[in-house]
Amino acid sequence: MNTAAQNVMVVLVTVPNAEEASRIAKTVVQEKLAACVNIVPQIRSVYSWKGEVCDDPESLMIIKTRAELFGAIRDRIKELHSYEVPEIIGVRLSDGIDGYISWVFEVTRSSS
Amino acid sequence: MNTAAQNVMVVLVTVPNAEEASRIAKTVVQEKLAACVNIVPQIRSVYSWKGEVCDDPESLMIIKTRAELFGAIRDRIKELHSYEVPEIIGVRLSDGIDGYISWVFEVTRSSS
Amino acid sequence: MNTAAQNVMVVLVTVPNAEEASRIAKTVVQEKLAACVNIVPQIRSVYSWKGEVCDDPESLMIIKTRAELFGAIRDRIKELHSYEVPEIIGVRLSDGIDGYISWVFEVTRSSS
Repeated sequence: MNTAAQNVMVVLVTVPNAEEASRIAKTVVQEKLAACVNIVPQIRSVYSWKGEVCDDPESLMIIKTRAELFGAIRDRIKELHSYEVPEIIGVRLSDGIDGYISWVFEVTRSSS
Repeated sequence: MNTAAQNVMVVLVTVPNAEEASRIAKTVVQEKLAACVNIVPQIRSVYSWKGEVCDDPESLMIIKTRAELFGAIRDRIKELHSYEVPEIIGVRLSDGIDGYISWVFEVTRSSS
Repeated sequence: MNTAAQNVMVVLVTVPNAEEASRIAKTVVQEKLAACVNIVPQIRSVYSWKGEVCDDPESLMIIKTRAELFGAIRDRIKELHSYEVPEIIGVRLSDGIDGYISWVFEVTRSSS
């Protein structure tokens, strides 16, 4: 088991469209806040907002980064995001292939 | 870190098509069993069933709700779902942005 | 709560296209290394590679299997995968519906 993987996080973010997803993704990778971002361009989102059940098109970002960078990437995405209350949630990994986990640390900055 | 996030779960459910995904999503959000549901309308699913390797079109639901509601939403989806053995699996979050986590609790009911 | 679910893992793998996803998926299910694989055929991936920010089309595999099989499926996918450093990362479940969790164990082999 690769215990270093437990210091890597998958961060899920939903955005209104693929353009905003791409813009945010390129910024956080460029700034070494994330190693990679998968963008699922077309999803539907059903959610509760001010007492109504809404159903809107969105895009989903699946970000991989250091767990220690969650605070920094959360704050940066909040600046870049067009929503008032964006979904920015993270789950720590349990395991991962060595080469990939090392690469995540190589291409992202330390939080200290 | 937002420790309340660890009381929020991502629940994954696969369904035969986007219509069933939308119907189930609207019901669980309406009934305050989930805060939001992302639907990935077109996926392929490769799986083992009665000794055969099958490959079928499906849709994927990515549900965000309170961890304490997993039992209730599991049972409600089982009622609504067209499969005999639906995939209903959950992963607790490690962290999340404050505004979003508070919103999840605002728009879902308590399990007690 | 179904504690056996915590011995099941969601494994995420990205591949260049849906054909490679389907080939790998059928192999790992056939060889009882995975119970099922959802393939999201069209995603965009933004990532850092040798100092450049790249943006390429990929497909995403969402694999469900026993946690004890992570090493075996990691090594088998590495053999089958066309990348030098493939993303193969896993997250243990927190909970799951009984019938599905039992099925995962029925259709996969033990690691011992």
